[in-house]
Amino acid sequence: MVNYVKYFQKEDIAATCAMTDVKGDRSLRPSEQVDPDLYLRIVEKRDDGIVVRGAKAHTTAAVPSNEIIVMPTRALRDKDKDYAVAFAVPVDAEGLKFVARSTVPRERGKMDSPFRSRWGVTETVTIFDDVFVPMDRVFMCGEWEFAGSAAELFAIYHRHSYCGCKPGVSDVLMGIAALLAEYNNVEGASHIQSKLTDIVCTAEEIYACGIAGSVQGKPMGPGTYVPNITLVNIGKYIAGTHIYEEIYRVHDIAGGLTITCPSEKDYFHPELKNYLEKYLKGKADIPTEHRVRAFKLAEDLTAHGFAGWIMVASCHGGGSPEAQRITIYRGYDFNKRKEIAKCLAGIKKFEEFPEFEG
Amino acid sequence: MVNYVKYFQKEDIAATCAMTDVKGDRSLRPSEQVDPDLYLRIVEKRDDGIVVRGAKAHTTAAVPSNEIIVMPTRALRDKDKDYAVAFAVPVDAEGLKFVARSTVPRERGKMDSPFRSRWGVTETVTIFDDVFVPMDRVFMCGEWEFAGSAAELFAIYHRHSYCGCKPGVSDVLMGIAALLAEYNNVEGASHIQSKLTDIVCTAEEIYACGIAGSVQGKPMGPGTYVPNITLVNIGKYIAGTHIYEEIYRVHDIAGGLTITCPSEKDYFHPELKNYLEKYLKGKADIPTEHRVRAFKLAEDLTAHGFAGWIMVASCHGGGSPEAQRITIYRGYDFNKRKEIAKCLAGIKKFEEFPEFEG
Amino acid sequence: MVNYVKYFQKEDIAATCAMTDVKGDRSLRPSEQVDPDLYLRIVEKRDDGIVVRGAKAHTTAAVPSNEIIVMPTRALRDKDKDYAVAFAVPVDAEGLKFVARSTVPRERGKMDSPFRSRWGVTETVTIFDDVFVPMDRVFMCGEWEFAGSAAELFAIYHRHSYCGCKPGVSDVLMGIAALLAEYNNVEGASHIQSKLTDIVCTAEEIYACGIAGSVQGKPMGPGTYVPNITLVNIGKYIAGTHIYEEIYRVHDIAGGLTITCPSEKDYFHPELKNYLEKYLKGKADIPTEHRVRAFKLAEDLTAHGFAGWIMVASCHGGGSPEAQRITIYRGYDFNKRKEIAKCLAGIKKFEEFPEFEG
Amino acid sequence: MVNYVKYFQKEDIAATCAMTDVKGDRSLRPSEQVDPDLYLRIVEKRDDGIVVRGAKAHTTAAVPSNEIIVMPTRALRDKDKDYAVAFAVPVDAEGLKFVARSTVPRERGKMDSPFRSRWGVTETVTIFDDVFVPMDRVFMCGEWEFAGSAAELFAIYHRHSYCGCKPGVSDVLMGIAALLAEYNNVEGASHIQSKLTDIVCTAEEIYACGIAGSVQGKPMGPGTYVPNITLVNIGKYIAGTHIYEEIYRVHDIAGGLTITCPSEKDYFHPELKNYLEKYLKGKADIPTEHRVRAFKLAEDLTAHGFAGWIMVASCHGGGSPEAQRITIYRGYDFNKRKEIAKCLAGIKKFEEFPEFEG
Repeated sequence: MVNYVKYFQKEDIAATCAMTDVKGDRSLRPSEQVDPDLYLRIVEKRDDGIVVRGAKAHTTAAVPSNEIIVMPTRALRDKDKDYAVAFAVPVDAEGLKFVARSTVPRERGKMDSPFRSRWGVTETVTIFDDVFVPMDRVFMCGEWEFAGSAAELFAIYHRHSYCGCKPGVSDVLMGIAALLAEYNNVEGASHIQSKLTDIVCTAEEIYACGIAGSVQGKPMGPGTYVPNITLVNIGKYIAGTHIYEEIYRVHDIAGGLTITCPSEKDYFHPELKNYLEKYLKGKADIPTEHRVRAFKLAEDLTAHGFAGWIMVASCHGGGSPEAQRITIYRGYDFNKRKEIAKCLAGIKKFEEFPEFEG
Repeated sequence: MVNYVKYFQKEDIAATCAMTDVKGDRSLRPSEQVDPDLYLRIVEKRDDGIVVRGAKAHTTAAVPSNEIIVMPTRALRDKDKDYAVAFAVPVDAEGLKFVARSTVPRERGKMDSPFRSRWGVTETVTIFDDVFVPMDRVFMCGEWEFAGSAAELFAIYHRHSYCGCKPGVSDVLMGIAALLAEYNNVEGASHIQSKLTDIVCTAEEIYACGIAGSVQGKPMGPGTYVPNITLVNIGKYIAGTHIYEEIYRVHDIAGGLTITCPSEKDYFHPELKNYLEKYLKGKADIPTEHRVRAFKLAEDLTAHGFAGWIMVASCHGGGSPEAQRITIYRGYDFNKRKEIAKCLAGIKKFEEFPEFEG
Repeated sequence: MVNYVKYFQKEDIAATCAMTDVKGDRSLRPSEQVDPDLYLRIVEKRDDGIVVRGAKAHTTAAVPSNEIIVMPTRALRDKDKDYAVAFAVPVDAEGLKFVARSTVPRERGKMDSPFRSRWGVTETVTIFDDVFVPMDRVFMCGEWEFAGSAAELFAIYHRHSYCGCKPGVSDVLMGIAALLAEYNNVEGASHIQSKLTDIVCTAEEIYACGIAGSVQGKPMGPGTYVPNITLVNIGKYIAGTHIYEEIYRVHDIAGGLTITCPSEKDYFHPELKNYLEKYLKGKADIPTEHRVRAFKLAEDLTAHGFAGWIMVASCHGGGSPEAQRITIYRGYDFNKRKEIAKCLAGIKKFEEFPEFEG
Repeated sequence: MVNYVKYFQKEDIAATCAMTDVKGDRSLRPSEQVDPDLYLRIVEKRDDGIVVRGAKAHTTAAVPSNEIIVMPTRALRDKDKDYAVAFAVPVDAEGLKFVARSTVPRERGKMDSPFRSRWGVTETVTIFDDVFVPMDRVFMCGEWEFAGSAAELFAIYHRHSYCGCKPGVSDVLMGIAALLAEYNNVEGASHIQSKLTDIVCTAEEIYACGIAGSVQGKPMGPGTYVPNITLVNIGKYIAGTHIYEEIYRVHDIAGGLTITCPSEKDYFHPELKNYLEKYLKGKADIPTEHRVRAFKLAEDLTAHGFAGWIMVASCHGGGSPEAQRITIYRGYDFNKRKEIAKCLAGIKKFEEFPEFEG
């Protein structure tokens, strides 16, 4: 493991983590599935390595990576031990296949789809068709007791990172909303300011959970630091559930042209240009084209394929909202709070509870 | 007017209403705009008719209609009287131009985009470049005092109709969510049932406002009936603000494959078909293709161009949420409620308030 | 049963329904409890009647009633059949005991507690210490199969009635909020109007569910009519979960004097009266005493014992929010919506679904 | 000022801040009020000090303090300069009067009102009837330009402190809810766990804003540190608006006995004790009295005068939710976000925005 880390750092590897198994019937454990390959597993152990079979879903950015790091996706039991496997493989390993799709790419034009014509994300179904992994790249091999905590640790870091990156998405959303409020000349309206404030609150709450999660973090094992589980889960939870409201606020502020603004082909068409310049004008000192471009960005980010991607990715990336809620509930010290209530209710004496004085 | 109604009924005309002016600077009234044409207006009055200039935004279904009916978009004042104009014109009237766009159409394939490859909506910027309207098709011509109530009446009916049609959208959304819950075999999970229930509540609340709005409606003028303003505005308000949460519930229930499911080209590709059949399997008794098709529908409706359209159209169609809130506030009898409070507080005697007895 | 109804109508009986058993361990069924009396049950069957033992919680208005009508509180199984019992007894039946409490009564003074000093509600723990019920007053006696539907029917009517009475509470809340907005002279503020609108929306949504629940109701059995289960459950659910937000809106609009306004003893004290008249003045044309009285009502209704009662009673009266959610989920036709989704996804042909045409 | 701070520290003074003026007509500035005393003001300037007149509302804990520190409550203009006054006076200063009320005190009994019979808060209307303040205790005297920032600074620290103390209230609320879930034996129910999690999220979000507000704070002037304005305002905003939902969650989890549990007089009454012991039993291994005590605490904290106090105090203490929203909006750098949007929309080149690279 340490050798791999050194190699990784020295070679400056770009890697992605293939985490989420395809899972089949969600109500069944790995070894209970009709097809045992619906969670990735060890199908053969050799002296020099292992052979693995299975598939991982939703692998982000696998195609441009050098290596794929594979982790178990959940806590496991004794009879699931073949599923307790973690390892790294280069993207060109034999038997490794990627079925890729990207977020609705577009040719770059003059004005339409200003975001999607420049940036996108690739997701793959990552198939391991009996891939051999040499032993020095195998990090877990049957130690099912550690599968749960490995999965959880990955989730903690992933959710923590959401607390930093998601507010950046909000920055863009509030930017486009504030810009269109200016271009429509409604910036002074109380309800517009109120809606912009709602987006700010969401963004900064998430960010606050990230910072506080770091501050309340604790050192763990060999030189690493683990952020506070409760706080980073709450941050990710807000991110994943409030993106919908943020998009609503943008739509509400921007107005209907978000989906009805003519295409760039029409806008730049010689017969139509003068009409559209005239009639799509907003505030007097703003060029019509600027306003149209702003609507194009609003459409691109909040009313098309990227909106779908950012909504679902915020919701399910790093685990679903329900996964965060369960983590928050399980990790929280309710007993301590019950003891406080018992003292206040007269069920227990304050003297018995050392933290309190009557 | 009556003649036009008779003609309309006899010829079974398909018409759309061009209502919303392009509006320019939203903080200025029609006659205050830098360009006086930013609200549609009468530029010439002749004995035999009028000439109008301006443009209407977001005209839904103009292209396949026979006629366009034009209404003022807001309450007006004396100096805005040239903007107080309502009339009907055939779609091929001279000087009438449509800049159309449709909701992200797709070629029909085997599996991808099952909704958008069949259905769509066309919106236009509808330009009136000095269109002549003969007098028998002019329904309002300078009567600015009635512009507000005409606009409001249109809004009431439009918002009422949302109370009937929007729950149909919810039916589809809860259908796809429930279907994927079944295919993933998580129908029994308490939080899944809870989220489906949330969509039901939204759909039925809107529907309840529609029914109650009809029941509480009142007859008006020549044989028409006006639904209860408060109730239909609330119904539309819920529709326009909760669509985002409904889409969130669908995403939450369905899972990440909503945006990461491979394309039909990959799914039916000879080299990949067996892998994808194997690894995209859900519940044992459901063919993989059914599950994939369900995800394709979820993507098509909630994570792509149609989602953008339904969100913005729900939000702004029939007026923005703020328009509904203002209508609700202005139309509500707070004085009656204040009188109740005065009686209860001892500021007024119950005897002075005939509806109460102490 | 019919005889009892005739007697009830002829004598114009005031009765209350004792429904909710004390329940003991909520995770156990009636016959599984450590003490079998934790749900009310038949302890002896005689030729001329039955003897019942147990206790009902939260019986509203038992003390001023003539009779108590007892119903089973939940669906039952075969081995719970002794708990399947419904009957009527006069309030002075031997062995029937009431442990009563009322909602924080107050002496009537000049100004303080204007509501609680006049009106209140009595709740009892209603104990049946081996009460004999003659056979002609026994309406269910072991027919456990019907316990669930009897309980549900009671709940439907109860929840329906909430849709009518709860908006009356909202009327008072928005009245006091609007009155204090006037007295503080902030009625024109956009956020104040927005918050009043929120209370209106809640009140009218509930009311709409009640009306629509009636319209969508269905005749059942011998001349009765059952409201639409889904709609009335949603109405009650909104009532029980939104009362907290309504109180919040009142507090937010009214301001801090809701809890810091001096007592009437201070207000009318000769040494203080002039000071308080001077310094508690709001809008110029409103007598200070009116403003103070309005704050007293706000305190009485939203920041004291009545607030506690109305919150908990709205939440749990007629069943808890979770009970409504479960009823909504179980009674809803998701299969029909799944079929729609299947047709749209291409899993099923439209021709197979008679309600649709492609 | 520095001398007063030294004196304050040396003598270990307990002081409270009298901040909020009684304000009269909220739509008018101090000098515009019909009665000029509705904001506290300087009525006489002498060589050795000033004479002040007016009244402050909602002064918490004035009675048990040694000194009262007075601050202006809002930003002022030139003509309001007599209202720009800050000073300290001992509680027994001549002309200083307190009209006090405490949060619904109760005699201590065996079981009822376990919280209110021990703890409470005193609020006063604090009247300055021409109080003389010697010059060495006057900290602001006409410098109206600084009134706004003085008021804002106080608010920042106050709101920051809410981020630490409010989660303590939540600790108690989740403690009593979790305890009653245990005593009713419903701890395992998914919806109960979900509702407890909601309270946790609220508590920890507020706490996160407090920590992050400290971390993002900045040094200011002579050795002090000012927390991040946006973050602490959001923290206080969540605290003040979510307390209602927290109370709802407690009610929902606890059940109706919160308001219908018999009084201690009944509970310990010889004729009733056995009945109530028997019928108020919950989970088998929990003494009935413990369960009853837990309900008494729930009632005391969430359904009576303390609930009113904590709701309104959370809402309005440290400024109303609207005050926080306005502070958040005004202090936020929307221009930076607009610039980002302009770059993404193609309105501005990335090169012009130094933070970005295309």
